[in-house]
Amino acid sequence: MNMTDPRTMANAIRFLSIDAIERVEEGHPGTPLGAADTATALFTRHLKFNPKDPLWFDRDRVVQSNGHGSMLLYSLLHLSGYEKITLDDIKRFRELGSHCEGHPEFDPSCGIEVTTGPLGQGIANAAGMALAEAFLREWLGWDIIDHYTYAFVGDGCLQEGVGQEVISLAGHLGLGRLIFLWDDNRMTDDGVIDLALSDDMAARFRLSGWHVQEVDGHDIDAVSAAILLAKKDPRPSMIQCRTVIGRGLPQVEGTRAAHSARIFREGADAARQYLGWPHAPFEIPEETLHAWREAGRRSLPEYEAWQSRVDALPSEQRRLLDRLREGRLPDGWDEPLRALRERAAREPSAEFGIKLSGDIVDLLTDAIPELISGAPDLEGATKHKRALAPFTASDHGGRYVHYGIREHAMGAMQNGMAAHGGIVPVGVTYLVFSDYMRPTLRLAAMMGLPVPFVFSHDSIGIGRNGPTHQPVEYLASLRAIPNMLVLRPADAVEAAECWEIALANRTGPSCLIFARQPLEPVRTDGSGENRSRRGAYVLLEAGNGPRQVTLLATGSEVGIAVEARRQLESEGVPTAVVSMPSWELFEAQDAEYRKEVLGRGTVRVAVEAAVRLGWDRYIGEDGGFIGMSGFGASGAETDLYEHFGITPGKVVEEVRKRLKSRSS
Amino acid sequence: MNMTDPRTMANAIRFLSIDAIERVEEGHPGTPLGAADTATALFTRHLKFNPKDPLWFDRDRVVQSNGHGSMLLYSLLHLSGYEKITLDDIKRFRELGSHCEGHPEFDPSCGIEVTTGPLGQGIANAAGMALAEAFLREWLGWDIIDHYTYAFVGDGCLQEGVGQEVISLAGHLGLGRLIFLWDDNRMTDDGVIDLALSDDMAARFRLSGWHVQEVDGHDIDAVSAAILLAKKDPRPSMIQCRTVIGRGLPQVEGTRAAHSARIFREGADAARQYLGWPHAPFEIPEETLHAWREAGRRSLPEYEAWQSRVDALPSEQRRLLDRLREGRLPDGWDEPLRALRERAAREPSAEFGIKLSGDIVDLLTDAIPELISGAPDLEGATKHKRALAPFTASDHGGRYVHYGIREHAMGAMQNGMAAHGGIVPVGVTYLVFSDYMRPTLRLAAMMGLPVPFVFSHDSIGIGRNGPTHQPVEYLASLRAIPNMLVLRPADAVEAAECWEIALANRTGPSCLIFARQPLEPVRTDGSGENRSRRGAYVLLEAGNGPRQVTLLATGSEVGIAVEARRQLESEGVPTAVVSMPSWELFEAQDAEYRKEVLGRGTVRVAVEAAVRLGWDRYIGEDGGFIGMSGFGASGAETDLYEHFGITPGKVVEEVRKRLKSRSS
Repeated sequence: MNMTDPRTMANAIRFLSIDAIERVEEGHPGTPLGAADTATALFTRHLKFNPKDPLWFDRDRVVQSNGHGSMLLYSLLHLSGYEKITLDDIKRFRELGSHCEGHPEFDPSCGIEVTTGPLGQGIANAAGMALAEAFLREWLGWDIIDHYTYAFVGDGCLQEGVGQEVISLAGHLGLGRLIFLWDDNRMTDDGVIDLALSDDMAARFRLSGWHVQEVDGHDIDAVSAAILLAKKDPRPSMIQCRTVIGRGLPQVEGTRAAHSARIFREGADAARQYLGWPHAPFEIPEETLHAWREAGRRSLPEYEAWQSRVDALPSEQRRLLDRLREGRLPDGWDEPLRALRERAAREPSAEFGIKLSGDIVDLLTDAIPELISGAPDLEGATKHKRALAPFTASDHGGRYVHYGIREHAMGAMQNGMAAHGGIVPVGVTYLVFSDYMRPTLRLAAMMGLPVPFVFSHDSIGIGRNGPTHQPVEYLASLRAIPNMLVLRPADAVEAAECWEIALANRTGPSCLIFARQPLEPVRTDGSGENRSRRGAYVLLEAGNGPRQVTLLATGSEVGIAVEARRQLESEGVPTAVVSMPSWELFEAQDAEYRKEVLGRGTVRVAVEAAVRLGWDRYIGEDGGFIGMSGFGASGAETDLYEHFGITPGKVVEEVRKRLKSRSS
Repeated sequence: MNMTDPRTMANAIRFLSIDAIERVEEGHPGTPLGAADTATALFTRHLKFNPKDPLWFDRDRVVQSNGHGSMLLYSLLHLSGYEKITLDDIKRFRELGSHCEGHPEFDPSCGIEVTTGPLGQGIANAAGMALAEAFLREWLGWDIIDHYTYAFVGDGCLQEGVGQEVISLAGHLGLGRLIFLWDDNRMTDDGVIDLALSDDMAARFRLSGWHVQEVDGHDIDAVSAAILLAKKDPRPSMIQCRTVIGRGLPQVEGTRAAHSARIFREGADAARQYLGWPHAPFEIPEETLHAWREAGRRSLPEYEAWQSRVDALPSEQRRLLDRLREGRLPDGWDEPLRALRERAAREPSAEFGIKLSGDIVDLLTDAIPELISGAPDLEGATKHKRALAPFTASDHGGRYVHYGIREHAMGAMQNGMAAHGGIVPVGVTYLVFSDYMRPTLRLAAMMGLPVPFVFSHDSIGIGRNGPTHQPVEYLASLRAIPNMLVLRPADAVEAAECWEIALANRTGPSCLIFARQPLEPVRTDGSGENRSRRGAYVLLEAGNGPRQVTLLATGSEVGIAVEARRQLESEGVPTAVVSMPSWELFEAQDAEYRKEVLGRGTVRVAVEAAVRLGWDRYIGEDGGFIGMSGFGASGAETDLYEHFGITPGKVVEEVRKRLKSRSS
C-alpha cells in the first residue's frame, strides 16, 4: 500500500479517531470517520494555512460546525502540524487538561477557530467570518485579505433554525468566499434522517442563491474538484458530500449506532482489518505523517509572498493592519466618549436611552473604521445606523448589516466576525429578543470574544407594546452568564462610560442595555474617572448626617432612587444613592470598597424594574426590593410604573417600614 | 354603497384599527389594514367558530402570528360578536386594563388563542395545534374532532429560524389542517423586504411539501376560493396573499412608514375620503355590524350538530371528552407515581437521573393517554420514548414526535398543543439546549400553559462533552422567569414527587431538570406526603444537639451535602441537610416555615453545581456557596467535581471556616 496515498492519509484521521474514542470509551466516531476523506481533500489540496503560524491573518478559516465529531478536527490539526495539538493530547481525548476536549474549544493558536457543539452555531460563525473577510478585502485590498471560510456541516446544523437563517442570509449577502462541506450521511442521532426531514436540502440552498454541487464524499478527487469550482463561483457554495456515517467501522458504518457508538477493542481491530491498517493504536506510519506535514507546508510560498507584501506596505497601512490583527482599537478611540460625557454633564438633558447609544455609535463609527453595525429589522427603533451604508451583495464595503428578522444569525455572525478578527461587530435589538440569540451570547462569553451586544427597550418602560416586549427576567438571566459583562447605564454620562468599558473589554462580550424611554440626567460629573468602571459607586452620599439608608438602583430606576432620596432627606433621613451599572465589575472590587458602597449597617433598598433574583446579595436579609414580581402589562409607561409600584413613593415607604422595624 | 358588501365589512376592520391607533397615538396599522380583506374572507366564509361559546372544543383555531398587527384580531373578534372584546376595549387599545393590549394576550374565552408578538412563535404554536387536532381526530374520531388551524403570518415569522423549522416540520409531519395566510406585502420595519431576503418563499414552502397558492390578498373572492382549495388539499397549505401594507391610508400605503406609522387626524380623515367611509370614529354602520354578527353565527348549525353528536356519545366517551376539554388528568393518574416513590424508598438504588424521568414518563404514558412525548433528535439520550409509536405523516395516532434538531419548534409546538387543549405535551432535551427554545419557555409562563418541559444533562456531571454541554447558568436563568416552576429532584423519590407536582400544575409550565449521572438515593420515606411540594424541606435534621449548620442543596448535589453532613456530625457539629427541589414552591410557603427550614442563626452553606446567582437569598450575608463560578471543562465527571471543588470535603471546609469566624 502507498503510505502517502490520500486514502491512507484519510485513514490516519480515522484511526486517530478510533483509537482516541476507544481509549476513553466515548465520543462520536460517525463524523470523523465519515468525513475523513472530504476533510483530507480540503486540507491536503486547498486549505491556505500555516500550522507554524496559526494566527496568520490571511489564512483560510475552517470551522467544524458539527463539533461533536471533534476528533476530525483534532486529527487534522495534529497531522498537519499544529504543535499545540500533540499526540498525547489526542491520547488523552476528553480528559481533563487535554487540548482535545469533547467539543472543540476556541483556541486559534492551535487552529480551533471557534467553539462548536451547539448545532448551527458554527455555520453562522463561519458566515460572520466570511462577512469579515469580504469587508476587510474591500477595505484593505486583495493583496492583504484574500481567503476562504470553510465549514464542516452536519445535518443538525441545517435543521436548526439558526442554520436556516444563515442559509438565507449568506446567500442574500453574496458571501462568495463561504464554502460548506455538508457531511450528507442521511443519519442523525435518532436514526435515518427521514424520521424528521423531507426537505430537499440542496434545493433549499439553491433557493437562497447558493452554488450547490453533489459529490461522493469518499472520492477525494471529486471533492477536490468540487472545492475548486466552489472557490471560483461568486456565490456561497454548498458541497453536498454523500458519505457513509462511521465509514470504516464494519459493524456500525452506515447505521444509527455509528453516530455516538462506543468503540470496543474488537471494533477497532475489525476496522484495522477492514481498512488494511496494520499499525498499533495511535501509531501513524512515518511516511503518512510526513505526507501530512508536507500538506501543512503547502501554503508556505503563499504565506511568504503575503509576508513580503505586508513588509512592503506603506507604514501607515502597515500600522493599520497590525492594529487590526492584534485587535487593538485606534489611538484616541475613546476621546469622543470622554468629550460626550463632559458635554452631557455640562448640559444635562433627558434623552431616550437607546438614542443615547445610537449617538455614541455614531461617534464611534467615525473613530473606529472597523466597526460594523447592524440590527435584525429594527433599524428605525434602535437608531444604530445613521450614515452607514448597508453591507450588501453588491457592496461589501458597507458597514451596516440588515440581518432581517434573524436575531440568532446576527448574534452568531457577530461572534464569527470577532473570532475572525479585525472587526468590532456591533449588533442591536430589543432586550426581549436577546432570548432568540441566547445560545450565541453564551458562546461569546465562553470563547471570551470581545463582542458588544446592544439591547434596547429594557423594561416595562417601553409601555404599550405589553408584556411580550417587556423584559423583566433578562437582567438576571444575562447576569447569570459567566464572563458576560452586563452594563445598564442610568443616563448619558453612564452611557458613554459603559460604552467605553464595553469596547475596552477585550476578553469577553458585553451586553449594553438601554431604556427606550428618556433617561433623566443623574450625573453632574463627566470629566473625571470613569466611575462606572467600578460597577457600582455612591452617586449621591447622604447629606444630612451619617448615612442611614442606601438606595441601590440601575438604569432608568436610578432617577427614581434620586427622587426618593430627595424626599427622605427632606424628612431628615440621611440617604445615599448607589448607581450599579454593572454587578460583575462591582464584584471585582475589593471587599472594603464593596462594603463602603453598600453602606455598613444601613437600611438598604434596591430599585430595578425587573425581577428580584440576585439582589439579595446586595440588600441583605433585611433589605427591601422595589421591582417586578411577574410579567408586565400593556399601557402607558407612567401608568405601568405606577401600577407595578415602582415609584419614589414606594421606595420611601419601603425605607420607612424598615427604619421603623429597626427602631422598634 | 352596499353596507354589507364584503369590502365594506373589511373596511370596518380598517377603521376600527385606524381610529384605535390614531386615538392612542401608536400601534401598527400596516397589518390590520393590509390583511383586512384576507381576514374578512376567512371569518365570513370559512371559519368554524361560535363567538357565544368561544371555547367550543371543535372550533377552528386562529392564530395571529404577526401579533404587532393586533388590531386586526381585535376588530375581527369584536365585529363577529365576542362579547369580551367590547368597543370600549378597542377605544382603549393599548391602555392599561383594556382587553386590547399592544399584542394579543392569551385568552381563549375571547378568541385569543395564544399570546403573540415575538415573531415566529405563533406559526409554531399553530403547528402544535394542528398536531393536537390531528392526534385527537385520529383518537376520538371525525365526529368529535374535525377542525382547521389558521394563522395570519407576516414576513418576520417566515424569516425567523423557528419559522423555518416549522415550515420543514409541519410539511414533514403532514399537518394537512394547517393553513397559513401569508400577508405578503414585501415590506418590513427596515423597508422593502429585499433588504434582507432573496428567497422565493413560495418555493421554500413547496420544498417542504406544502400546498402553495398565490392570490391577490385584497380580492376576497379569490382568497376565499384559495382557502377552499387549501382545506381540501391533504398537505399543509400556505396561501400567499399579495397585499399592500397599510392599504387605505393614502399617504403611507405600500411604504415602509405604514408598518408602525403614527396615524394623525388628517391621515384618518384622508383614509375616510379614500375608502368612502363617512362614519364617525369608532362608528360601525348598523347594517355592517349586523352582517358581521351574522358571520359570527354562520357556524351555528355545525355547532349544534356537534353538540348533538356529543350528547349522543356513550357515557364513557363523553366523560373522556369532557375530561380532555376541561384539561383534567384521568382519575388515578398519580397512582403509579406514588407507587414508584414507595418502591424507590423501599429499594433504594442509584439511578441515572434522566432514566428515572424516562421510567416515570413510561408509567405516565399508560396512565395518561393524551400524553404526547418527543425530543429534538435525542431519543436515545433522553429515554422518553420507549413503547410509543412515532407521530408521522402516515400515522397521526402516534404519540412520540421526532422533532428533528429543532428545539425551538418543539417548545413552541408544545405550547400550541397545550393551548389547543386535550394534550399533555412532554418535550425533552438537554438543559443547555433550553436556551434554543427560551422564547417559548417565557411565553408558556406568560400564558400560564401547563407544559412539562423536561431537561436532562443538567450540570458538569455530564462530564466529557465539555463546557458547551454543561449548563452552569441555566438554573438561575430559568428561576428568573416569572410563573415558571423549576424542579430539580435529588433522587428517585423526589423525581416522582416533582413529576407529580409538574403535572398537577395547571396554571403554568414546569421545567423538570434531571442529571444524566446516577443519583444516589437520599430519601428513605416514599409513602407519606409529597415533601417536594413545599419546595424545600429538612431532609436530615441535625442529630447531635441543636442545629448549628444548615446545608442547602438541590438535585445531584444533595448527595454531596448528605456526605458532608455525615463528616460534620462525626466531628460533633449538629448539621441539617435541606433539599430544595423548587425555589418557587419554597417562596410560596409562609415565613415561619421558611425560617424554620433555613435554620435560624445557623451557619448556612449551599451546594449546587451551578452559578451562585440567587442563592444569597437563602444563605444570607454570612453564608457560603459551593458551586461554579465559570464555565465547565471536558473531563470525567468525578474529575470535574474534584477540579471545581464541589465535594463533601469542600463543603465541610467552608462550614468549618464559618464556624471559626463566628466563634472568634
